[in-house]
Amino acid sequence: MCSLPVPREPLRRVAVAGGTHGNEMSGIYLVRHWLLTPAELQRPSFSAVPVLANPAATAACRRYVDRDLNRTFASTFLKPTPDDPYEVTRARELNQLLGPKASGQAFDFVLDLHNTTANMGTCLIADSSHDVFALHLCRHLQLQYPELSCQVLLYQRSGEESHNLNSVAKNGLGLELGPQPQGVLRADIFSRMSALVATVLDFIELFNQGTTFPAFEMEAYRPVGVMDFPRTEAGNLAGTVHPQLQDQDFQPLQPGDPIFQMFSGEDLLYEGESAVYPVFINEAAYYEKGVAFVQTEKLTFSVPAMPALTPAPSPAS
Amino acid sequence: MCSLPVPREPLRRVAVAGGTHGNEMSGIYLVRHWLLTPAELQRPSFSAVPVLANPAATAACRRYVDRDLNRTFASTFLKPTPDDPYEVTRARELNQLLGPKASGQAFDFVLDLHNTTANMGTCLIADSSHDVFALHLCRHLQLQYPELSCQVLLYQRSGEESHNLNSVAKNGLGLELGPQPQGVLRADIFSRMSALVATVLDFIELFNQGTTFPAFEMEAYRPVGVMDFPRTEAGNLAGTVHPQLQDQDFQPLQPGDPIFQMFSGEDLLYEGESAVYPVFINEAAYYEKGVAFVQTEKLTFSVPAMPALTPAPSPAS
Repeated sequence: MCSLPVPREPLRRVAVAGGTHGNEMSGIYLVRHWLLTPAELQRPSFSAVPVLANPAATAACRRYVDRDLNRTFASTFLKPTPDDPYEVTRARELNQLLGPKASGQAFDFVLDLHNTTANMGTCLIADSSHDVFALHLCRHLQLQYPELSCQVLLYQRSGEESHNLNSVAKNGLGLELGPQPQGVLRADIFSRMSALVATVLDFIELFNQGTTFPAFEMEAYRPVGVMDFPRTEAGNLAGTVHPQLQDQDFQPLQPGDPIFQMFSGEDLLYEGESAVYPVFINEAAYYEKGVAFVQTEKLTFSVPAMPALTPAPSPAS
Repeated sequence: MCSLPVPREPLRRVAVAGGTHGNEMSGIYLVRHWLLTPAELQRPSFSAVPVLANPAATAACRRYVDRDLNRTFASTFLKPTPDDPYEVTRARELNQLLGPKASGQAFDFVLDLHNTTANMGTCLIADSSHDVFALHLCRHLQLQYPELSCQVLLYQRSGEESHNLNSVAKNGLGLELGPQPQGVLRADIFSRMSALVATVLDFIELFNQGTTFPAFEMEAYRPVGVMDFPRTEAGNLAGTVHPQLQDQDFQPLQPGDPIFQMFSGEDLLYEGESAVYPVFINEAAYYEKGVAFVQTEKLTFSVPAMPALTPAPSPAS
């Protein structure tokens, strides 16, 4: 298992995106706030750029207009074709602004701000267990905010091309805060997201200033599958998430535990062979994706130390 | 203050509507369930009809397609005009099915099922303090479910024509259960709504069988105004509901209490002259209506006894 290379240069081109989904309100209003007060995103070695990722969906207060923008940053969509849906066009614009993906010209870091209706608390979404820079950042957030019990979710499934907004940049992280209904802006979650973003920028500044980050053991969750709702032959729901599973994100689900309550009153039990850790339980946006919850496994692994940047040669040398 | 006449005949034409708002999931899935199992809505003296009120909005999982259906049952919309928006056409269809409004042919009772993102628990929405039949029904629900602390909200503002779905029938009630995000179906709220509907039908059956209901004192909340979010000159939010007010529906708000937290960090305080009781605090659907919460006053009033129906003359007499 090889690690991705950690940055060799200071991260100077940094963006913070909100409104990738147009009804996840914390990031939307943070970005709008920073567009008026950009000094809040300044640090001595860089200034982060606020980006409202999906303006049309945000104006409509919907997740998306034509298709999920955060599933559109795959190479297949990044080449122009006639009559592209809105989000395909917008993904290309963002790829021009923050990428191009997998190029030397891409932004150094993109932080993407999300909300979920699920009870996921403070969830940090990194690409994989190879992503050393992001995992050190997660560790830093966990240490700075022990009261938030920040959980780390490794999003990318092996062999798949990343298709989310972060993937256009060289490094990135997603923040997923909940529970918050779509279209609602809760002050508590707004304040929490604002504080987390400030600490992300502080971490980048520490890195840029030549800080060394020691090795550590990390616990994280990795998707292993998804579970759809029980459905009628016509495809409608035949039941919903069981009260004993509702709101239990990141808690172990054992074989034999109830997962769905049918409208007939019957319980459906989990029939897997070993415990899984469900996340995104009863997320509103996933009904249409056929996902009642995402099954994850819990991993513990070592993250190597991240050495200090070599100081740049002074201009006089 | 005069009371509305209580029914003189058994209530035989009864409907239960869900999906008046297409993203309030409890009523939608209850109605779909009852369309397959209509026996659950049968009582000895009547059978209630399940009605999916806004099929197009339900299919799109949105509150409405063109305009809020539950503000469309006013006489101005019930006359056909060219190029009517979807919900205006649908309101006329429902007026034909369940009304016509204010006619002798209208349904005897319509129960309309709603969810809110606000922390309103179990809220029963009656038209006014004159609505003796609905208030006896509310009292019955309060006595049957003491653990739910059912609150009664008197919806209609004096002098205004009712414009909600119930208003097409001779009698009606709204159930407003929360908190539940739009587009999410929680099993706990589904079960609670299902039990409440069964008890509403049981109450109608008791009435039809000639039960007398004694007078009582009722406590209820009546809207006296609405409070918009603080906004920028461009009309965007400048802050959101204060953490101390969030989730405190039906609790007294005193002059000087914080109501909004500005994005600048400042608190805005309530400047009214006396306590009000906010409801629909931070309801997602009301952002576009310019409503951060609805201010109500708390009333206590006497509801007169509801006499037993006079038995119908036997066919032989």
